Amino acid sequence: MKARSVRIGLVQHSCSSDLGENIAKASLGVSEAAARGAEVVCLPELFGSTYFCQVQDPAYFELAEPADGPTVTRMDRLARELGVTILAGFFEYRAPGLCHNSLAVLGPEGKLGLYRKMHIPQDPQFEEKFYFTPGDSGFMAIPTPRCVVGPLICWDQWYPEAARLTALQGAEVLFYPTAIGWMPEEKELHGENQRSAWEAIQRAHAIANGVFTVSVNRVGVEKSTAGEIEFWGNSFVCAPSGEVIARAGLGEEVMVVDCDLQQLHDTRRIWPFLRDRRIDAYEGLTNRWGRP
Amino acid sequence: MKARSVRIGLVQHSCSSDLGENIAKASLGVSEAAARGAEVVCLPELFGSTYFCQVQDPAYFELAEPADGPTVTRMDRLARELGVTILAGFFEYRAPGLCHNSLAVLGPEGKLGLYRKMHIPQDPQFEEKFYFTPGDSGFMAIPTPRCVVGPLICWDQWYPEAARLTALQGAEVLFYPTAIGWMPEEKELHGENQRSAWEAIQRAHAIANGVFTVSVNRVGVEKSTAGEIEFWGNSFVCAPSGEVIARAGLGEEVMVVDCDLQQLHDTRRIWPFLRDRRIDAYEGLTNRWGRP
Repeated sequence: MKARSVRIGLVQHSCSSDLGENIAKASLGVSEAAARGAEVVCLPELFGSTYFCQVQDPAYFELAEPADGPTVTRMDRLARELGVTILAGFFEYRAPGLCHNSLAVLGPEGKLGLYRKMHIPQDPQFEEKFYFTPGDSGFMAIPTPRCVVGPLICWDQWYPEAARLTALQGAEVLFYPTAIGWMPEEKELHGENQRSAWEAIQRAHAIANGVFTVSVNRVGVEKSTAGEIEFWGNSFVCAPSGEVIARAGLGEEVMVVDCDLQQLHDTRRIWPFLRDRRIDAYEGLTNRWGRP
Repeated sequence: MKARSVRIGLVQHSCSSDLGENIAKASLGVSEAAARGAEVVCLPELFGSTYFCQVQDPAYFELAEPADGPTVTRMDRLARELGVTILAGFFEYRAPGLCHNSLAVLGPEGKLGLYRKMHIPQDPQFEEKFYFTPGDSGFMAIPTPRCVVGPLICWDQWYPEAARLTALQGAEVLFYPTAIGWMPEEKELHGENQRSAWEAIQRAHAIANGVFTVSVNRVGVEKSTAGEIEFWGNSFVCAPSGEVIARAGLGEEVMVVDCDLQQLHDTRRIWPFLRDRRIDAYEGLTNRWGRP
């Protein structure tokens, strides 16, 4: 196997209600990552706005923009200028009354793919089913100049099916742009366990599939009429061995992390989990509940 | 929801090449767990012998016994005497040239089920494909007087599909009798990461499925003509929240752990992952590789 590696950039930042400001901040982060040698750079989920899903308000549909709207256009241009691949999430307007939580993969020579979030949460202050139609893009692996990217988004990270299906298409690095945080009333009692569970399940995807996982969260406290969320940052990169090889803190941060893609091969040699899957016995996975 | 809980016993012990000695030791452990109130007790994988799979030797097929052989008969009797449910793994002789790595679930009023290991490893010193035919039992949930048991075995623990399919049939507690350890030459460099990955992926099954997981490993150093393995113990119980609520050390130990089954309901209320599964998009999980 030929030695291959990729330098990944994670831009962890806070977001305001001003799209221009957020794009400027994100661009600065991507540029810093690129200056430090990053070849694939990921931004937080829906970085163009506050996490408006804290409340259900039809007015927020005005934030949605088409896949050739300002966010993607600006990030596409930046990717070309810097010669990097950018993963940029945005609130996609597809048709009247039909919007998605989407992730554009933008390469140095143009658009490479569009993933539409498949698993949509609906919890108090994470009211995504109100805004986002479940994606029909399916799971995908997108070749970029430096590695095969597996685009996924936030809530997808709790689903081993999403990681598996993406890895089975050849993805080498799973990306999870994210918006996850603590409710002030839960933080003291449950906060560390929530963060730990969030990290553990993504480590498990890396282990089970022999891939790298990259999770990029926003930071900062955002208030709404429903309450507030403290986005917990802690963006991280996990190796196929399950080791967290880089982890950010609670504040704004640009991380660049070298991922030796040879590790996919080496780890799967000693943990050959893909070899022993019982595909003859998995049909029940398309059931809601109960026996196949 | 009516409050329900179950006290689980984990009997972590070393194993010799003497079946009678191992059964006696296991029985003592089960009896101690029962005396301390355990209602469901799990023994390590293949506790009736050393981990003979370190080498490929046809002579070891003589260790196989039918599902009504001495190991199951003795454990069945013990379960009735003590009024508990026992999970007892054994090398099952099913027909000439057709053997399984099996797990009998033995209730206080008789046999409840038989699970045959679905995922079979084959690595240096873990030469299981030589001995064990992949199970055709499928994944199952077995109602016992105190909880619905999900029987799984060792290598299954690396497969999110196994955990999911078992949980979807209503299992409340996934059991993984195990034989996992360190190679002396790997321990210093990789040992802690291997143990941590093993724990993380089982925590992830608990989180993804909102169930308890129980892993029961053997301990001790076993030598063979191929080398030696230091079985690392560290048997543990993980709650649906992903918290490890009990963890053994490196030596022999009987643990009893109360599992509040109400937590399945409570955790799935705040982490309703089963609700959002995209069963319309999972058909590719029965593929070996590539697109559906």
